[in-house]
Amino acid sequence: MVDSRGDSHAGPGGPPGPDALLPGLGQEQLGSLDKIGRAWGQVSAPPEVWRDALPVDPNLGTFPPPTEIRAARAGRVLPIPPLGGSPGERLDVAEPPQGRAGRARVWARRAALGEALRSSALVTERMRKLTALPVLSADALSSVAYGPEAMVAVLVLAGSAGLAYTFPVGGAILFLMLAVGLSYRQTIRAYPHGGGSYIVASDNLGQVPGLLAAAGLMTDYVLTVAVSIASGVAAITSALPSLAPDTVLIGVGVIVVLLVGNLRGIRQAGALFAAPTYAFIAAMLLLIAFGLADAAGRGFEPRPASPSSATESLGLLLIMRAFSSGATAMTGIEAISNAVPAFRPVEWRNARTTLTWMVGLLMAMFAGIILLIHLTGVVPNAHETVLSQLAHLTFGSGWLYVFIQAASAGVLLLAANTAYNDFPRVLSLLARDAYAPRIFMRLGDRLAYSNGILLLSLAATLVFVAFGGQTAALIPLYAVGVFLAFTLSQSGMVVHWWRLRDRHWRKSLVFNAAGALLSAVVFITAGVSKFFSGAWVAIIAVGLFLLITLRIRRHYETASSALHLRPHTADLPTHTAEEASLAQQRRILAGGNRRTVAVGGETEELPQEINLLSVVAVATLDLASMRALAYAASSLQPVLAVHISVTEEEARRFRGYWTRWGDHLPLEIVVSPYRATVVPLVHYVEALHRQHPELTLTVILPEVVTRHRRHQFLHSRTAARLRRALRPLPKVVVTTVPFHL
Amino acid sequence: MVDSRGDSHAGPGGPPGPDALLPGLGQEQLGSLDKIGRAWGQVSAPPEVWRDALPVDPNLGTFPPPTEIRAARAGRVLPIPPLGGSPGERLDVAEPPQGRAGRARVWARRAALGEALRSSALVTERMRKLTALPVLSADALSSVAYGPEAMVAVLVLAGSAGLAYTFPVGGAILFLMLAVGLSYRQTIRAYPHGGGSYIVASDNLGQVPGLLAAAGLMTDYVLTVAVSIASGVAAITSALPSLAPDTVLIGVGVIVVLLVGNLRGIRQAGALFAAPTYAFIAAMLLLIAFGLADAAGRGFEPRPASPSSATESLGLLLIMRAFSSGATAMTGIEAISNAVPAFRPVEWRNARTTLTWMVGLLMAMFAGIILLIHLTGVVPNAHETVLSQLAHLTFGSGWLYVFIQAASAGVLLLAANTAYNDFPRVLSLLARDAYAPRIFMRLGDRLAYSNGILLLSLAATLVFVAFGGQTAALIPLYAVGVFLAFTLSQSGMVVHWWRLRDRHWRKSLVFNAAGALLSAVVFITAGVSKFFSGAWVAIIAVGLFLLITLRIRRHYETASSALHLRPHTADLPTHTAEEASLAQQRRILAGGNRRTVAVGGETEELPQEINLLSVVAVATLDLASMRALAYAASSLQPVLAVHISVTEEEARRFRGYWTRWGDHLPLEIVVSPYRATVVPLVHYVEALHRQHPELTLTVILPEVVTRHRRHQFLHSRTAARLRRALRPLPKVVVTTVPFHL
Repeated sequence: MVDSRGDSHAGPGGPPGPDALLPGLGQEQLGSLDKIGRAWGQVSAPPEVWRDALPVDPNLGTFPPPTEIRAARAGRVLPIPPLGGSPGERLDVAEPPQGRAGRARVWARRAALGEALRSSALVTERMRKLTALPVLSADALSSVAYGPEAMVAVLVLAGSAGLAYTFPVGGAILFLMLAVGLSYRQTIRAYPHGGGSYIVASDNLGQVPGLLAAAGLMTDYVLTVAVSIASGVAAITSALPSLAPDTVLIGVGVIVVLLVGNLRGIRQAGALFAAPTYAFIAAMLLLIAFGLADAAGRGFEPRPASPSSATESLGLLLIMRAFSSGATAMTGIEAISNAVPAFRPVEWRNARTTLTWMVGLLMAMFAGIILLIHLTGVVPNAHETVLSQLAHLTFGSGWLYVFIQAASAGVLLLAANTAYNDFPRVLSLLARDAYAPRIFMRLGDRLAYSNGILLLSLAATLVFVAFGGQTAALIPLYAVGVFLAFTLSQSGMVVHWWRLRDRHWRKSLVFNAAGALLSAVVFITAGVSKFFSGAWVAIIAVGLFLLITLRIRRHYETASSALHLRPHTADLPTHTAEEASLAQQRRILAGGNRRTVAVGGETEELPQEINLLSVVAVATLDLASMRALAYAASSLQPVLAVHISVTEEEARRFRGYWTRWGDHLPLEIVVSPYRATVVPLVHYVEALHRQHPELTLTVILPEVVTRHRRHQFLHSRTAARLRRALRPLPKVVVTTVPFHL
Repeated sequence: MVDSRGDSHAGPGGPPGPDALLPGLGQEQLGSLDKIGRAWGQVSAPPEVWRDALPVDPNLGTFPPPTEIRAARAGRVLPIPPLGGSPGERLDVAEPPQGRAGRARVWARRAALGEALRSSALVTERMRKLTALPVLSADALSSVAYGPEAMVAVLVLAGSAGLAYTFPVGGAILFLMLAVGLSYRQTIRAYPHGGGSYIVASDNLGQVPGLLAAAGLMTDYVLTVAVSIASGVAAITSALPSLAPDTVLIGVGVIVVLLVGNLRGIRQAGALFAAPTYAFIAAMLLLIAFGLADAAGRGFEPRPASPSSATESLGLLLIMRAFSSGATAMTGIEAISNAVPAFRPVEWRNARTTLTWMVGLLMAMFAGIILLIHLTGVVPNAHETVLSQLAHLTFGSGWLYVFIQAASAGVLLLAANTAYNDFPRVLSLLARDAYAPRIFMRLGDRLAYSNGILLLSLAATLVFVAFGGQTAALIPLYAVGVFLAFTLSQSGMVVHWWRLRDRHWRKSLVFNAAGALLSAVVFITAGVSKFFSGAWVAIIAVGLFLLITLRIRRHYETASSALHLRPHTADLPTHTAEEASLAQQRRILAGGNRRTVAVGGETEELPQEINLLSVVAVATLDLASMRALAYAASSLQPVLAVHISVTEEEARRFRGYWTRWGDHLPLEIVVSPYRATVVPLVHYVEALHRQHPELTLTVILPEVVTRHRRHQFLHSRTAARLRRALRPLPKVVVTTVPFHL
């Protein structure tokens, strides 16, 4: 629950492990457990007694192995040996499931997702720097495929006067990269266990800033998927324009591939990442080198940009928009600081070195592309990416052009995949801290956070389709979340150094403060200048996220305190019916309302406090009802049968049957003149509860279960409807006695 | 169940009453009941004992009235006094439900459907002839609005050579009307309790012909709704052509109105029917009279039809199509024979007189319109109905024209409403005989067969929308089902007379044979000549219907025999664990398979045969689990707690908590290396069952219930998933112990 943070995961920054859903008990809880145990001890028999009374041998490891194993539906029943058996051996998979549909489902699932993985397969792979660089920097480096283009696309709106600002704005972004890079070097030193923005901000600034950072990150990851795929598809359609009309279709297809791949759990795929990222780095460096060589041939004389009339006047707002659009080139720069524990020892030192390489490469590539754009006079257009135009100018349409486009597309898809690793991880951290539904903590049978992966795919598809798969339309949404997270994370680091004051703290604080300040500037710039062109979507998303997470947390806190073990305070209840009835009368006369009674009831935890009454709902006298009656009678507790009749004539007839059967159990007939069954029965049970609130009522429902699920609709759904209707009632336990046809 | 036909409804032909879902027991069942009762008597205490042991007073009528009534969700809990109270008085309706959504839902439901009706409100209204005529003949008489038009529309395809056949084909249809009318007079005499086609055909010809007749009727009713509404909307759009593009929308709106109206139960609306039907009769007679007077002024010289080129050659097939299309003018002619008990005494005599009137009116109107079409040379077109064209020619566009169109539209909507009475009634008869799901027998709280009404609306909407709301497109589907039902019904009457041989049986047999023969001719004509233009849809629908009803019957027969009470044959089970275990070993060694054991287990019905073991699924030690453990322990039956752990470390930790608590109950920990919870637990329970098949296992699941349903997704759905997975297991009872937050 909420207080489980301390022991349900490996380190403070690591994602929750497979047993996070089964949190341990705190000291105070253990104390309560002792006291509860002593209270039970007053009545319960010692283990020596019940061990012999148990009619089965619970350790199935010593039970002769089954001669025949019937798989349940869809073959999902695996005979897993209990602890007493031999858990080390390879588990038998159940017999193939019966029925063609079941077999097909199992086959399809296995083909798409692979065999289930054991929890012990969850080992953290340690990466050396040459592997870590491509794995962790695909997101950041790929950003140069759309960042410079996004910047120039804004400037060109003011015509050639605007394009004159290419170098100043580009220079500012380079400075920003340097500052943020230096800032994250400090984070790596301070958080060797991984310092994601959520961790750093919530550790140092508190709950709401932490959640805001998480909100920024989450919207960022959704947009990383959308923008990277949009940009990757644009790289493909620039080379193959005939595919352009299918942009949305291709993009959604890519999301589906990423979804399936990540549900399979493609985490150990370092090699898979290395090739495209290094290919992209090589492609960019080639492009820049050949482009500069070309320009050198012309004496570095810039070609004039193709004539374009200014559609907007050049002003501060335009410059701000260009700056914040270009700043998307540094999204993903935080990846290394999140993943410090994945490096080989000394982790933080290797991580810092890798970060330095990455920022260096990023700055070089960004600067080179800006320079090429300036020299070649290329301007963005809707049909071809700037990178593709540059490659065309430099290499024509030969193999090198194809290589550049393929490398761009490849690295962009990897960048999208990075979000598939990070989004579910952050979500699982939020779930661990009770800010998100607990299902996001669950590791699927392929050891992936399946629910988070599904949610990301859904959100990314929604955004991608809504914006028509166009990079330019998505960019305005992008920067806001990223720089919100950067700002909060860096501010958190400032507080961290101020509190810690270790060696070099002043230097680190200054670097982080500079990073925070610059990030804040970009965040505000982006939020203001692009508010109406899309940033409002991201801002509303962040706001909603904050609202929902806080509400979820509040609910979990209420639930946790309600479920907390507490030493038993109530006296043992009065045992005779007369006393209980009198107490009840007094309570009613005192005007005590239901709720108090109910809440009082919910705390009971000792067997001796529980007074049972079984209420069997009988519609007709058939074998199903007889089984339910026999089940109720066999418990040796008081039993009351209730029959709902729609006419008095039917009521008399049923009474007759009951007498003929021998009147073995008390029967009450409720006449329902409106022909409803569920409502009168629920009301009757409620009234019984009001009469004797100290009783725990077990409502026993006979239910006909058909062999094929498609036949179930031919039988009464009353049992299921009753179960649902009885759920909210206090102290009512619902038992279903199935009768299998 | 299947054998309930004898006593669950009033007469053999009447629809099932409110208590049909609670059928009585047959003689053999009562005998079994006696024997089962004696077996129980060997162990159960006499009533004097348990009456005092019961901790509650089950008769809530003597319990002090509740000081406070809390309504359950959506206020559906009405405090209905039990039989011991005063069932005669007006029932209190519960306090308004809590929450805005709940109140709004109740208000909307009440506004749309009205207050609930008591079963005792189900009285059969007896009609005098002047009321019965409009109520029962709206369907048949309204058919002249599309029948003649449909006939001429086919003939005109062959140009003026085709139109020359108007009189011969029309004459044949008039003869058919007379023959079928005379035939149904015999049915009324033979079936004074109401002789619907399904009843007559299944009584005299057997199961399959009865079902075929029902299938024909059901498709007929769906098409009556679709065709009548299409034709009614055409009457409106002929007068107001600007509404033509919204045909489908208007039609669907009308279906929704009919749906809501019939869910309210608008059965006592004799007066409602009288006005439009008599208005339509008056309108048609006026139109014919003035039209003939006009023609008399011209010396009955027919105007030439507007020149139309023949698109098809005149041949037998075309004549057949015209004949079968025109025969749709007599759909609904069977209505009076279904409803004989609704007449005042002497029922059958009054019904016969009314039938004679109706057929007379129908023939007169049909002949008159055919004559007018011939004299005026009007031919069908897509924008205006023939009736509208005739009215325009005779009355211009004045008030009389508007009156004719309004009366046509009105009577057509009533005709559609007739199907809303008949379709659910036939479906309820089928459900009574176990050919349809039993939910179609349920009377809603407004005493209407709500589920049948919903199904009809759904099917009619589907057909109406699929054929674009065009009468001409729907007509080819129509005749097949009607004349199939007519043929089987009349053939059944032939058999009836042959068997009975009372006074006049020869005359009646001849009339019915003629009706059957002619109906068969129309059925075959329609099926053959319009097979490809739409009749195939109806034929496939009839075939599917037959297949599904027979399968449903088979399932219910299996279910019924499985649920039948039977005298207990098995010996009392061995009681000691050693004996049981030995018996089980023997069974396994003998290779006895699971199914036998399971089926053997399902027959148990005596409490002394049931050996209980409670299995409590515990995930964490919190109050919800403690309640479940206490509940299990309080039953004084053997209890086994099971914990599913994803890692061995977690397993050890949980074992530690258990020991600390005091080890009050035996605990088994199952390690699930694939992190699944449901599957290992289901498997464990299955293995326990295999170990001791004589035990009834009660699986106890703690479940957290949130106050608001929207919060439930934040909590584990494991309990619900386990319940579903455990359902198919034999001898496993599932108990949910709720913990309310």
